[in-house]
Amino acid sequence: MEAKNLWRFLFLSTVVVIISLVSWLHLPSYSNKEVLNCDSGWCTSKNRFYSSARPKEIKNPSFSSFSTHDHQSEIPKHPLDPLTIQEFNRVRTILSSHPLFKSSSSYTLSSVVLEEPDKKLVLKWKKGDPPLPRKASVVAAVKGVSHVLTVDLEISQVTSLETGSASGYPTMTMEEMVGVLEVPLKSTEFNRSITKRGVNLADLACLPLSSGWYGTPVEENRRLIKVQCYSKEGTVNFYMKPIEGVTVLVDMDRREVLAISDDGQNIPVPSGANTDYRYSIQKLNGELRLLNPISLEQPKGPSFTVDGHLVKWANWEFHLRPDPRAGIIISQVKVRDPDTLKLRNVMYKGFTSELFVPYMDPTEGWYFKTYMDAGEYGFGLQAMPLDPLNDCPRNAYYMDGVFASSDGTPYLQPNMICIFESYAGDIAWRHAECPITNLKVTEVRPKVTLVVRMAAAVANYDYIVDWEFQTDGIIRSKVRDGNSV
Amino acid sequence: MEAKNLWRFLFLSTVVVIISLVSWLHLPSYSNKEVLNCDSGWCTSKNRFYSSARPKEIKNPSFSSFSTHDHQSEIPKHPLDPLTIQEFNRVRTILSSHPLFKSSSSYTLSSVVLEEPDKKLVLKWKKGDPPLPRKASVVAAVKGVSHVLTVDLEISQVTSLETGSASGYPTMTMEEMVGVLEVPLKSTEFNRSITKRGVNLADLACLPLSSGWYGTPVEENRRLIKVQCYSKEGTVNFYMKPIEGVTVLVDMDRREVLAISDDGQNIPVPSGANTDYRYSIQKLNGELRLLNPISLEQPKGPSFTVDGHLVKWANWEFHLRPDPRAGIIISQVKVRDPDTLKLRNVMYKGFTSELFVPYMDPTEGWYFKTYMDAGEYGFGLQAMPLDPLNDCPRNAYYMDGVFASSDGTPYLQPNMICIFESYAGDIAWRHAECPITNLKVTEVRPKVTLVVRMAAAVANYDYIVDWEFQTDGIIRSKVRDGNSV
Repeated sequence: MEAKNLWRFLFLSTVVVIISLVSWLHLPSYSNKEVLNCDSGWCTSKNRFYSSARPKEIKNPSFSSFSTHDHQSEIPKHPLDPLTIQEFNRVRTILSSHPLFKSSSSYTLSSVVLEEPDKKLVLKWKKGDPPLPRKASVVAAVKGVSHVLTVDLEISQVTSLETGSASGYPTMTMEEMVGVLEVPLKSTEFNRSITKRGVNLADLACLPLSSGWYGTPVEENRRLIKVQCYSKEGTVNFYMKPIEGVTVLVDMDRREVLAISDDGQNIPVPSGANTDYRYSIQKLNGELRLLNPISLEQPKGPSFTVDGHLVKWANWEFHLRPDPRAGIIISQVKVRDPDTLKLRNVMYKGFTSELFVPYMDPTEGWYFKTYMDAGEYGFGLQAMPLDPLNDCPRNAYYMDGVFASSDGTPYLQPNMICIFESYAGDIAWRHAECPITNLKVTEVRPKVTLVVRMAAAVANYDYIVDWEFQTDGIIRSKVRDGNSV
Repeated sequence: MEAKNLWRFLFLSTVVVIISLVSWLHLPSYSNKEVLNCDSGWCTSKNRFYSSARPKEIKNPSFSSFSTHDHQSEIPKHPLDPLTIQEFNRVRTILSSHPLFKSSSSYTLSSVVLEEPDKKLVLKWKKGDPPLPRKASVVAAVKGVSHVLTVDLEISQVTSLETGSASGYPTMTMEEMVGVLEVPLKSTEFNRSITKRGVNLADLACLPLSSGWYGTPVEENRRLIKVQCYSKEGTVNFYMKPIEGVTVLVDMDRREVLAISDDGQNIPVPSGANTDYRYSIQKLNGELRLLNPISLEQPKGPSFTVDGHLVKWANWEFHLRPDPRAGIIISQVKVRDPDTLKLRNVMYKGFTSELFVPYMDPTEGWYFKTYMDAGEYGFGLQAMPLDPLNDCPRNAYYMDGVFASSDGTPYLQPNMICIFESYAGDIAWRHAECPITNLKVTEVRPKVTLVVRMAAAVANYDYIVDWEFQTDGIIRSKVRDGNSV
């Protein structure tokens, strides 16, 4: 929330009223029509809950090719729009000719995102104005040294370069997270420890576990990660088959095993029998399958519009962009005042700043588990493609994320965000005159809200992040765990 | 919740599994078809929020005639089914020949409801068994003395009669609540006080306010009520025009003014300009009207069945009945255990026991406001007919209440309860394997719940009472105020 200057408020309100007179551009359409069943004349959901069909497999989003939307030709329409594919590629070109990167055969780009223009400039900017200069903020590791750069896309130059001055270490890239999982297998000690427990090395499922910070000498000047493994023999639910007590300390940059802790030899690996949670495997009894299909339907289509990344619905207007760390960034949220008819600024920027998961168990294999699930793993990086009809209802509109991989090439997170109008049959407001007064008044306003959703799968945790906008002016920000909604 | 006897549990579970093999009887149908718009080939909601049509006026439910359902020929199917019209009439006949009522020209029946059979008998009873003996519990006031009676409908006799032994006084009947409002007008002092404030007596809207208990001599052996009034001149929102400081103490049985407190002469009655909250009157700006229709649709119909008052849905089964005091009484709630496939008893009886509203303002016109909104006014008595598409979605099934008026004749509370499956596009459970592990798993269960709803308008308060059943075994009981949902 922000304190507002009256004149700025009046100016912006007037501007926005004028803008609102211009017709809105893109009406969202029902996407993913192919998963709908329209045989009966009704298009109805085939929610997995009701169907015995085997779930469609999804592709690993990190390696998806660009799909339906024409992201290749996308150009920014708003100062806060995320970097486009063309912009990511230009950043890469500019960096490749910079002395820092020219002199090194390999480097890692830990983060490439929009560098937001100054808030004052953004607030002044209005549709039709010349675009504000586009800049990228880059965090790069070159020969083990971190650099924070600003790349000006206007003048094709690195305009700012700070080296090694930042506190802490750059966040992990997807490539680093996946890459460290091979490191323990180089150790014969590790392999012996695993096979001694009766686990086939081919059945290992390992995870890169951020290891906290305890101020010990071994942690100095190194990006460390711990690896623990499970057995996926006989079940996809490998979390039920932990190889307890084996923790491998890995230098992430050098890809070297530094130490192996092995104190759980007497703890057996569970069998994994009857642990598969997949619908297609479950032997549910008939009583639980009795539900008929149910669907949120809007015969005249949704009431919101999405123009690039600008969303308008009912009395709300806001900017929405995918972000590799925060997942969703909501900006410039405005609500229309019913008395003045003007838009009022209510929030300049909102996002998930962190999700801290301390396990608080002092034993060797658990003490270090103090995960920063957004800042270390990236809510955007771990975002899963939303499963139409299951993660979001049929009237949802989907938005892709475009992020940079560790060499700077852009890739797609498809269906990363969905936007839909929610209606649970609930009441937003009601007043009826009671039988005592005998006045004929009964007034009810059904409750319809706008939901912006994403789901990040951070190892065994599924975080469902909802931003919910109510017509009464309330914004609800919800983070729910997929196991306890 | 109850502690369960193992053998009873096993016996009942077996019984219920057998019962469940027998086909279910009544599939609820979409009622109130006439308020739907099916012009476009789609039947869509005409939620008031989207429509500029003037709301249909509702009839005062206390005086409604019997409608669509054939309540006249209804017979109880379950030991906990509420009294039927025929049973109410038989109670009245039995009472009229009883010496207590024969000897009196007038009496008031404050409450006539089912006297529940012993819990052990109810738990043993199963469908197909002979019906348990039906009894009514009656609270009657005869010549100012209270009596609590049990009427056995099997043998057509009053089998129990306690006189004056109960603590406190009988609850108010609708006739008493409405009747006391005329009493202040008999007082010239009251009329003078009102007109001195510039309020026309014809514009008065008055309320019977339960006056608490303060142990003063004037309260002994009397049923007292306080009356305060508002002006409805120029607005239906008379609560915005209080006649502050005028409180009339009334003897409810004698219909006499006992005292008038008049200390607000210097407090003006507000004008009431721009206070009308009705949709048809509101001058909403266009931006707020942009929402397209949205509807919960179930092309194959609802998944629940209602057999009399027995509701079955997904893994749930429960008995449901309207009650003049509690509003909704939920009984014998059972959930099917997915491992054993047997029904488990989880709650024998659940209802709103009370809703206490103490204002805690020490001034003369406010100190006594310590309302028991369920026990004094009756959540069932004050229940409003639910407004289809506004109070409940289009896939809702409606249930009427049948209650007794103060002379014992039955009357209808139409559409008092609705039952529907709710789906907000939300997720009940999800797990996806994260990009790191590269396993192709994404599992999501959409969230569908069963909602049982009523709305009681207790003077200026609209209480929305929801019983919500989740497939994961959770029961949520919600009481929400219509002004702050």
